[in-house]
Amino acid sequence: MRIKLTVSYDGTNYCGWQKQKNGISVQETVENAVFAAVGEKVSVIGSGRTDAGVHAKGQVAAFDLAANIPPEKVCKALNTVLPPDVKIIKSELAENNFHPVRSAKRKTYVYSLYKSDVILPLKERYAVMINGKLNVNLMRKAAGVLIGEHDFKSFSSTGGGVKTSVRTLYSLEIKETDDEIKFYVCGNGFLYNMVRIIVGTLVKVGEGKLTETDLKNMLAGGGRKIGGVTYPAKGLCLEKVEYE
Amino acid sequence: MRIKLTVSYDGTNYCGWQKQKNGISVQETVENAVFAAVGEKVSVIGSGRTDAGVHAKGQVAAFDLAANIPPEKVCKALNTVLPPDVKIIKSELAENNFHPVRSAKRKTYVYSLYKSDVILPLKERYAVMINGKLNVNLMRKAAGVLIGEHDFKSFSSTGGGVKTSVRTLYSLEIKETDDEIKFYVCGNGFLYNMVRIIVGTLVKVGEGKLTETDLKNMLAGGGRKIGGVTYPAKGLCLEKVEYE
Repeated sequence: MRIKLTVSYDGTNYCGWQKQKNGISVQETVENAVFAAVGEKVSVIGSGRTDAGVHAKGQVAAFDLAANIPPEKVCKALNTVLPPDVKIIKSELAENNFHPVRSAKRKTYVYSLYKSDVILPLKERYAVMINGKLNVNLMRKAAGVLIGEHDFKSFSSTGGGVKTSVRTLYSLEIKETDDEIKFYVCGNGFLYNMVRIIVGTLVKVGEGKLTETDLKNMLAGGGRKIGGVTYPAKGLCLEKVEYE
Repeated sequence: MRIKLTVSYDGTNYCGWQKQKNGISVQETVENAVFAAVGEKVSVIGSGRTDAGVHAKGQVAAFDLAANIPPEKVCKALNTVLPPDVKIIKSELAENNFHPVRSAKRKTYVYSLYKSDVILPLKERYAVMINGKLNVNLMRKAAGVLIGEHDFKSFSSTGGGVKTSVRTLYSLEIKETDDEIKFYVCGNGFLYNMVRIIVGTLVKVGEGKLTETDLKNMLAGGGRKIGGVTYPAKGLCLEKVEYE
């Protein structure tokens, strides 16, 4: 039977979701847990890669299990052997044709900045310091340019290896509090580093160094060099993946 | 000149504030930073110990500096050489008779619980999971018993080595949201493990396993065994230390 997992992880000590030669991945950590818990060597497929250091509140993954365990109890069995920084939030029975990548309809990422003039150790793990004053209204207005179906090639790093760079952004909300600025980005899929480049580019808008027109030029194929830097992995969290 | 520092740290990887033989302390980390930055071997005195694994948003410390550096710039000089999990939030000139322990008037600690049936990796570092349903109103009512000047001996672990176990608790607020319960505890000083035992005891009240009367008996000298367990260090954070 196919089991759907909702996986949460602190990505700090991992080389990302996907198995790599140069470090421990979340994927192999979960596969090892399946082997330790039920003795089956399985392939656990995630809804998509998250880069080294990126966190997840609700990554979705699936694998085929032979053992006769109630699907909702797989969660507890795996958590017993998983480390504290990778845990299964939920396990459930999935249709046999359920595929974490192909069946995914919407993904939501959250990117967190904290406002401070000095590094705050208790914020550093899951957010990135911003010490200048940003014009968030300008950022919100520019973010509107990105909503909809566009070729986001100028908002991606090379190396993603995808067929098309056209994606649909459903929403991009920027919420500001006294000490934080958070970006809620929802779309049908994301290119390599896309959210982190969008954030870096919008920060430049907030600093008055880029304008809405620059973003339009990027969407029109102007290229990556117009945009802002790729913001650090640790500020990014895969919030949820939605299916029909 | 005497320099007052406001120090913030993620206590996860430290044996506590105070220098120990069995690990790296925050105190020696700051002292080493002073030596690395200005070449002076100094003693940095904190407002009090925090245990291994306890965090601080605003620990206060002081030391005497010979070098002629503007006091407010000491912060930046130290932060350049400090690791990301220990940073100076503020540095300022203090009176020559300023003493972080003796001059302290009020300390505020925050203890964080998160409500979940499974461990959440993104919450685990700074909070403790609580999976039962707690009656927070009962906890708030019982917390009221602790306000004021009392002998808190039954709310302390042995080994603190203090002259008196009488302390004044100014306030103890419990704030609940959908996913968290936070304790804001303010007093003129705290015994060894006192906040963590107060939290453990109030959780038992919330579970219906202890009552206000039990807390009154503890204050009347009933002893540590009546109370709840000492809650884990990682949920505790020294929020601020106030001086006249």
